[in-house]
Formats: sequence, structure tokens, C-alpha cells
Amino acid sequence: MTDQPTQPANSAAASLEVIDEAVRAELTSLRESIDNIDAAVVHMLAERFKATQRVGRLKAEHKLPPADPERERAQITRLRELAAGAHLDPVFAEKFLNFIIAEVIRHHEAIARA
Amino acid sequence: MTDQPTQPANSAAASLEVIDEAVRAELTSLRESIDNIDAAVVHMLAERFKATQRVGRLKAEHKLPPADPERERAQITRLRELAAGAHLDPVFAEKFLNFIIAEVIRHHEAIARA
Repeated sequence: MTDQPTQPANSAAASLEVIDEAVRAELTSLRESIDNIDAAVVHMLAERFKATQRVGRLKAEHKLPPADPERERAQITRLRELAAGAHLDPVFAEKFLNFIIAEVIRHHEAIARA
Repeated sequence: MTDQPTQPANSAAASLEVIDEAVRAELTSLRESIDNIDAAVVHMLAERFKATQRVGRLKAEHKLPPADPERERAQITRLRELAAGAHLDPVFAEKFLNFIIAEVIRHHEAIARA
């Protein structure tokens, strides 16, 4: 029975502590890449909100409505196409944009009330 | 009454069609920046999911649980700090990471079932 595992590394109870060193090293490397990407995305989003805050002030000054459904539809169509080209699930890309737009509209409403 | 508006550009019913050309140009410029940032973020997220798919396969192969609460707590703490440094609302940054992690766990569960 040489294909029987000799230690419990493959059991359902295996934790990061008991998995072998090569697997742990690969997991650490992947997580470092994920952390780098997250830092980049956070900084891109900070810049994005700077732009949308300016849009919000412009809209408030000119009494334009905080939401713009036509613009949002165009953004969603474009982002779904970009996502497909990047092999990212277009459904997720749309959910992501809706998540961001909801936050932006919350900001615009706060600016309009101020 | 010289401070009375002479045309309806400032009325609540004003639309992008009737606001003046300078405002429209500024809005267009800001929206182009937002679209550029969104394209960058979509491509960063595509790369992020490539990394998390590899993590998912590694976890499935080694029978590790799809979610890792300790890792998630460390990610949230780090991202809130990065957000504060970039003048991004840390509460939003945490919501954003939770939104992404929920999608990642959905992927990991699908890999583990496959």
C-alpha cells in the first residue's frame, strides 16, 4: 500500500501549520502578489473618488441630479466588454461597478445636502 | 433683482443638454479620467483573480478550507491603513475588500466542488 498517505497533510483537518514547505511558500508568494494588487487598487480607487468628488461638486453647483442612468448604462456596457477581454467574469465586473457607483451616489447626495 | 437667474440652467430640471459648455467640458474630462481608472482597476482585478484561482486550486489539492479568517483580518487591517494614507474612507475600503473576498470564496468553493 505505497500510495497510502504516511502523514495527515492531506486530511480535511490539515491547516497551514502542517502543510509542506513548498505549498506554504507558493501560498505566501501568491498572497504577496494579491497584497500588491490590493494596494494598487486602493490607490486607484482613491484617485477615482477624487474625480467623482469633483463631479459631485460640479453637479451640486449646477443643480444636476446626483445619478445619471444613461452614463451608468454606458459605463456598465464598456466595463463588461473590458472584463471579457481580460478574462474577468462580466457579471462580476457589473456588480463591482454597481458597488462603486452606489458609494459615489452616496457621496454626491452628501455634497448636494451640504 | 439682478441676482435672479435669467435662464433655467440652474433649475432642478437642468440636464446635461442645457448646462454651459465649460461645465460640460470639465465633466467630460473628469469622466474620461474615471473611465481610464476603471479600465486599470478591471485589469488589476483580472490579475488578482488569476492569483486567487491559483490559491483556490492549491487549497483544494491540499484540502485546506476555502476561507481563512485570520488572513482576512490581516488583509482588512492592512487595507484600512493603506486607505487612510490615500485619503480613502477606511470603512469603504473594508466594504470593498469584503465584496472581493466574498467573490473569491465563491470561486474557491466552486473549485473545491469540481
